[in-house]
Amino acid sequence: MVNHYSSKLVEEAVNELSKLPGIGKRTAMRLALYLLKQDVSFSERLGNSIINMRNNIQFCKRCHNISDQEICEICSNPRRDEKTLCIVEDIRDVMAIENTGQFQGLYHVLGGLISPMDGISPSDLTIEKLTDRIKNENIEEIILTLSATVEGDTTSFYIYKQLSGFTLKISTIARGVAIGDEIEFADEITLGRSIIGRLPYENSL
Amino acid sequence: MVNHYSSKLVEEAVNELSKLPGIGKRTAMRLALYLLKQDVSFSERLGNSIINMRNNIQFCKRCHNISDQEICEICSNPRRDEKTLCIVEDIRDVMAIENTGQFQGLYHVLGGLISPMDGISPSDLTIEKLTDRIKNENIEEIILTLSATVEGDTTSFYIYKQLSGFTLKISTIARGVAIGDEIEFADEITLGRSIIGRLPYENSL
Repeated sequence: MVNHYSSKLVEEAVNELSKLPGIGKRTAMRLALYLLKQDVSFSERLGNSIINMRNNIQFCKRCHNISDQEICEICSNPRRDEKTLCIVEDIRDVMAIENTGQFQGLYHVLGGLISPMDGISPSDLTIEKLTDRIKNENIEEIILTLSATVEGDTTSFYIYKQLSGFTLKISTIARGVAIGDEIEFADEITLGRSIIGRLPYENSL
Repeated sequence: MVNHYSSKLVEEAVNELSKLPGIGKRTAMRLALYLLKQDVSFSERLGNSIINMRNNIQFCKRCHNISDQEICEICSNPRRDEKTLCIVEDIRDVMAIENTGQFQGLYHVLGGLISPMDGISPSDLTIEKLTDRIKNENIEEIILTLSATVEGDTTSFYIYKQLSGFTLKISTIARGVAIGDEIEFADEITLGRSIIGRLPYENSL
């Protein structure tokens, strides 16, 4: 389909919008028309919030969670339990777990899962930095909170092997979360209960 | 669900994105994470293209199509047939008809359809400006190219009545487009053929 936009401005906005995942040309055009019908301030707020976010975002130097400062709100909160780490795939999982209100420890965000199919190896994740934290911080327990998928299980096992030399309790969340489901889509009660009912990692093998 | 974003920047971008039609909080979060994984220039191009479009867009003073100038590309093209007007609901219909390559005339974009249910009355559309054009320009035929819905039929009939005093051929596209379907979703061949096979409006009543 050759499109006749009659406006280079609209064509450009549609092109940029359609680069987003799950948004095709037709949806992008619908969004552009919606924006044209709204006040100028609507587009300015949207556009600036996107630019602002990307330009000023930081990742916490300690746990790799997204943050507006060098160290994130969770890591710098003195009331959090510094001896327990929840190991998660990405920041959406941090949000999901925070929403349960069941976890008072800190996080370590891997930035993905080991997946040879997608070309993601352990060195692409923050696993080495996790080892450093365990060496340097006073951590007593890590809770592997990864999705019950091939990639999640592989990553859990890899981390478990890497940390075998440390005196450290390694647990995994109770499989209240259905096998095959993604962490971020679990309901809050199930996810919260699975954190409370965590088991030694050996028991889940 | 109370969300813990751990970043006001992300929270703001997610809030703005989720104001778009068809985009909920979860999709907005997915888009925000995608943006964070891309280069800074990606978000800058996206954000600026949206702001730019909305700030600089104009509507053609003649046909009300979107335009980067006062008069759009189609209206200012000397090779177009100025005696034939296609009456359409919105600019997506202009794009759909241009894509057929079957129409060489000009357009008149109504900006919507008469819909008492949605509070859209004839005065909200550019119908008066259409009457002005017919008075002042040398138009011999208008083709009513509106969706075959209650609103489309109502609008066609309203325009037909408004223009009854003029010596003017009023046609409507052949119903090659299935009844109930929207103009913009018709395939190019069907839509093109329906323009060629247009009939006097009376015949379609």
